[in-house]
Amino acid sequence: MTDKQILLLPGPTPVPPRVALAMARPAINHRGPEFKTLWEEVNAGLKEIFQTRSEVVILTASGTAGMEAAVTNLVSPGEKVLAVTIGAFGERFVQICRAFGIEAEVLAFPYGQAADPGAIAERLAADTAHEIKAILVQHNETSTGVLNDIQAISKARGSHPALLIVDSISGLAAADLPMDAWRVDVVIAGSQKAFMLPPGLTMLAVNERAWQAAEKCTNQRFYLDIKKARKSGLKGQTPFTPAVSLLYGLRESLHLLQAETLAGSFARHVLMRDMVRAGARALGLKLLAGDDVASPAVTAICVPEGMKPADVINPLREKYGVVVAGGQGTVKDRVFRFGHLGYVSFNDILAGLAALEAVLLDAGVSVTRGAAVAAASAVMREGMAVDIETIAS
Amino acid sequence: MTDKQILLLPGPTPVPPRVALAMARPAINHRGPEFKTLWEEVNAGLKEIFQTRSEVVILTASGTAGMEAAVTNLVSPGEKVLAVTIGAFGERFVQICRAFGIEAEVLAFPYGQAADPGAIAERLAADTAHEIKAILVQHNETSTGVLNDIQAISKARGSHPALLIVDSISGLAAADLPMDAWRVDVVIAGSQKAFMLPPGLTMLAVNERAWQAAEKCTNQRFYLDIKKARKSGLKGQTPFTPAVSLLYGLRESLHLLQAETLAGSFARHVLMRDMVRAGARALGLKLLAGDDVASPAVTAICVPEGMKPADVINPLREKYGVVVAGGQGTVKDRVFRFGHLGYVSFNDILAGLAALEAVLLDAGVSVTRGAAVAAASAVMREGMAVDIETIAS
Repeated sequence: MTDKQILLLPGPTPVPPRVALAMARPAINHRGPEFKTLWEEVNAGLKEIFQTRSEVVILTASGTAGMEAAVTNLVSPGEKVLAVTIGAFGERFVQICRAFGIEAEVLAFPYGQAADPGAIAERLAADTAHEIKAILVQHNETSTGVLNDIQAISKARGSHPALLIVDSISGLAAADLPMDAWRVDVVIAGSQKAFMLPPGLTMLAVNERAWQAAEKCTNQRFYLDIKKARKSGLKGQTPFTPAVSLLYGLRESLHLLQAETLAGSFARHVLMRDMVRAGARALGLKLLAGDDVASPAVTAICVPEGMKPADVINPLREKYGVVVAGGQGTVKDRVFRFGHLGYVSFNDILAGLAALEAVLLDAGVSVTRGAAVAAASAVMREGMAVDIETIAS
Repeated sequence: MTDKQILLLPGPTPVPPRVALAMARPAINHRGPEFKTLWEEVNAGLKEIFQTRSEVVILTASGTAGMEAAVTNLVSPGEKVLAVTIGAFGERFVQICRAFGIEAEVLAFPYGQAADPGAIAERLAADTAHEIKAILVQHNETSTGVLNDIQAISKARGSHPALLIVDSISGLAAADLPMDAWRVDVVIAGSQKAFMLPPGLTMLAVNERAWQAAEKCTNQRFYLDIKKARKSGLKGQTPFTPAVSLLYGLRESLHLLQAETLAGSFARHVLMRDMVRAGARALGLKLLAGDDVASPAVTAICVPEGMKPADVINPLREKYGVVVAGGQGTVKDRVFRFGHLGYVSFNDILAGLAALEAVLLDAGVSVTRGAAVAAASAVMREGMAVDIETIAS
C-alpha cells in the first residue's frame, strides 16, 4: 500500500510543486523592502483575479475569518442584514452575525438549490425603510455544490442601498465573478481553494461603497480590522505579522493562474465538473444539485439506497487512496462530496471515478464496469477539442 | 552582490531546511485521520514546550490574534484588567482591551525596564473588591528586549483571584516559563519565534481556572473562539480550516526542540544574547536594557550620538546583507533591534557583529577594529565549554 493519495476535496487543494517550493524560500523581514515588493506583486495579481480596481486586503487566517471580517467591519450591532442561505456556509454567516449582535434575517433555500433572485428582489422591494444594510450570500456553496447566480442577485437589488457581500471562498478563480462589472461590494476568498495554496490566508476585495460603510461601522474588531490592513497595505506592509511563506506561494500561484488565464481556469473547472457528473451518473448515482446550478468546484453525490456516506468515503481512502469529503448540514447523512477544485488534473478525476466504481462493486452495488471512466473520458475528450475560450464564454 | 541575507530579527526567524521541507509535504484532508495523527503529535509536543498539563489550542493567525483571543475569551465587556506594560506589545494589549469594551488599568514601566513585581503586588492588595479580573503582561517584550520576571509577578498576585495572562510570543522556548509550576493561567505563543517557523500560527495554553472563566465570558468572538477550538481539538480537528502546511512544519520544529531539549534552547539563546551584548559594548554602543533584565531573544542597541536607526539598519541590509529590526514605540528613534531568536547560529551573530562594525567604520565612528567579534567569540568559546545544562539552570 502506498501513501500517495489523490485529493478530491472542495479544498484544501493539492499544492503545485512550484508553489510548494516557493513557500520554502528563506524568511525575510516583513517590515523591509523585500516584503514590499512581494506585497505589491501579490496585490496587483489579486486584483486581476477579483476582476476589480478596488483595494484587496489579505488577512493571515482562514476563510471563516474573512467572513467574520466582512461582517464586523461593515455592519454595526443592532443593524439588520439579509442572509441568503443555501447550505452550511450560508448558515455560518448567520452564526457570525448573531455572535456580533447583528440581526440576521434569513432567506433560506433548500440544500441543493440555488437562491431565487426573484425572492431576494421581492424582500428588498418591501424594505422601503432600507433597514437591510447588507445582503450576505455565497457564490459557491461548498456544502452542497451549488453555484448562486450572483449577477442576477446583484440585479435583484435594484436601487436598494444594501451592500452585497459575497463569500466566494470556494468560488473565486473557479467560476466567473467580475466584481466591478456585477456591482458586488465585497468578495471574500481563501487560499486553499482555486488558488491552489495551503490554508492560512483569506483575501477580501472591498469597493469604495463598502469602505465608506467601514468608516461608520461601530462593531468590534482588532486583528481582523480591514481598515488597518488597507492603511498598512498602502505602505507595502501588514498591521500584524503576515504568513510570509504563504504569500510567496500565492505569488507563484498567481503566476500559474495568469499563464492559464482566468477564462482557462473557469473552463477547466467546468470540464472537471462535467466529467464528474457524467461519471457519477454512469454509476447510477444521483446528484444533489441540478445541472443548471451545478458548482464547478465540487459535486455532492448521493449515496446509493442503504449505504451511508462513510461506506463510500472510508474504503475510497483506505483501500484506494482517494480522498473525498463528507456531507455537511442537513444532507450530512445522504451525500459525499467529490471535489474538483484547484490543482486537480483530469487524470485525478478519472482515477477517482475508477476507485468509486470499485468501492460500489465491493459493496455489492450493481454497476456497469468501466462506464464511469468511459463517460467522463468522453466528456474530457470533447471538452479538450473545444477552444478553451469558447467553453468559458 | 548576493541575495543571501543573515536575518537577525526578533522574528520572523530563519526556518531550518528540515522544517521548510516538511511544509512542502502533500496536502491532506483536515477532516481525515491523517490530520488527527498530526494534530495529536503536535499537541503533545506543545505541552512539553509550554511545560503544562493543560489544553493547548492552536489558531491559524499570527500572534496578535492570540492576544485578542486571550482577551475576548476570558474578559467580559465592562470588566477591568490590570495591563502591565513595559513596551509596545504591552500597549497593544491595552488597545485590544479597549477595542472590546474592557477597562484596562495601565501599570506602565519605562521602555527598557522590567515590571516591578512589588508595584503589582501593591496594586492587587489594594483591590480588595477583586475588581481586577486579569493581569496582562509580556514575558519577553519584543520592542525593548526586556524579560519580565513572570515567577515573581505570579507570586505578587498572592491570593488575588485575577487570571495571569502572559504574552510569551517571543519568549516561549527561548526563556524558561514553566506555566504550571509558576501558576500562570494562560500563555500565548507564536510560530515565527523560537519555534523557527514562518508566521501564521498562534498557540494558547489555557489552564482549568481560565477555562472556567471562558465559560462565563460574554465577550464577542467567532473565529478566535478558544472553546470551539478545544472542543474540536479533542476530536483531532479544528473548528475552521487550519494552516496544515505550518502544522507539518511545527511537528518538525518540535522534533528539533525535543532533540535540543528545552534547557538546551534556553542556554543557546542566553549565550547568543551574551555574545551580542559583549560585541555591541566592544563597539562602544549602549544597550537599552540592563543585564539583569536582558532578553535572550532580542537586544535593543542604542545608535551612536548623531546617528539615526536607519543609518545603521539600511547599510547593514543593503551593503552587508544583514537584516536587523527598527525600534518601536517611544524608543523608535534611538535604537535598532539585533535579534538572536530561533534558527540563528553563533556564526550568524559573529557575522552580524562584523557587519555592524563595518557600518560604524563607514559612518566615521571610531571603533577598535575586530573588538566586537573578539569579544563575542570569547563569550561563545567560554559558553561552549560549560555544560549546557549548567547554563540553563
